[in-house]
Amino acid sequence: MKDIILRKAQKEDVIEILNFVKKLALFEKAPHAVSATVEDYFENGFNENPLFFCNLIYYQKHLAGFSLWYYRFSTWKGKRLYLEDLYVNEEFRGLGLGKILLDECKEEAKRSKCTGMMWQVLDWNKPAIEFYKKYGASFDSEWINVNLQLK
Amino acid sequence: MKDIILRKAQKEDVIEILNFVKKLALFEKAPHAVSATVEDYFENGFNENPLFFCNLIYYQKHLAGFSLWYYRFSTWKGKRLYLEDLYVNEEFRGLGLGKILLDECKEEAKRSKCTGMMWQVLDWNKPAIEFYKKYGASFDSEWINVNLQLK
Repeated sequence: MKDIILRKAQKEDVIEILNFVKKLALFEKAPHAVSATVEDYFENGFNENPLFFCNLIYYQKHLAGFSLWYYRFSTWKGKRLYLEDLYVNEEFRGLGLGKILLDECKEEAKRSKCTGMMWQVLDWNKPAIEFYKKYGASFDSEWINVNLQLK
Repeated sequence: MKDIILRKAQKEDVIEILNFVKKLALFEKAPHAVSATVEDYFENGFNENPLFFCNLIYYQKHLAGFSLWYYRFSTWKGKRLYLEDLYVNEEFRGLGLGKILLDECKEEAKRSKCTGMMWQVLDWNKPAIEFYKKYGASFDSEWINVNLQLK
């Protein structure tokens, strides 16, 4: 495992993070949905009271993937870690990097006194669903996401 | 409109908030899903850096409904206000209280420099879906909620 390094992202990493986000959006068939800018990431993630957190993972010194999360309050379940994004570049898949990123989020959720974790998966993304099942996650497809754009 | 009062919830209101949450969970056919305690609400919502915010609405001095929200970071859209819950007691429906609660969240989203708002709706809750359509909201049913309980 000495070839694998996991570290917290810094302000200097925002361009790389946004590159990952765009690759993931392309995989999720929504390449044009990304309107957030480098400034949005700077302002919201890298101040005294950050709205989100991000880990980067390296394999043999190559940047290979990332996870991005924040905290939510479920009126049903209390404090939850929400995994907004998890992505590993295609050429680094099958090496267990996704598992390392997800496991680290799970530990982070425990350290920050969350009662659990949440995330979303696309209904057609069967490999991801199978991966999450191994963690004992539960799935609920009854809810529709609603979005209201304000600017 | 002088019979309607909207105010920010305080720590003293937590029991009333949790009562609303349980009523809403019952309507959503998940009465046993609420495991969050009064302490979870105290600890996370009423400190120097609250994880959520809540408005209460009164009609003719009767507590009639509530909204509960927090901020999220969408890697696609930037800072978003997330409306976790919005509820009006059955006897106070049809008076426009839900609209006042939602409009206030929209103003709050603008004041806090969000690019938009998000929430979720159950796929069978047609009256709510119709109500949200009037706001010009967009709907996406392709995503599945994933939950991992940690304690």
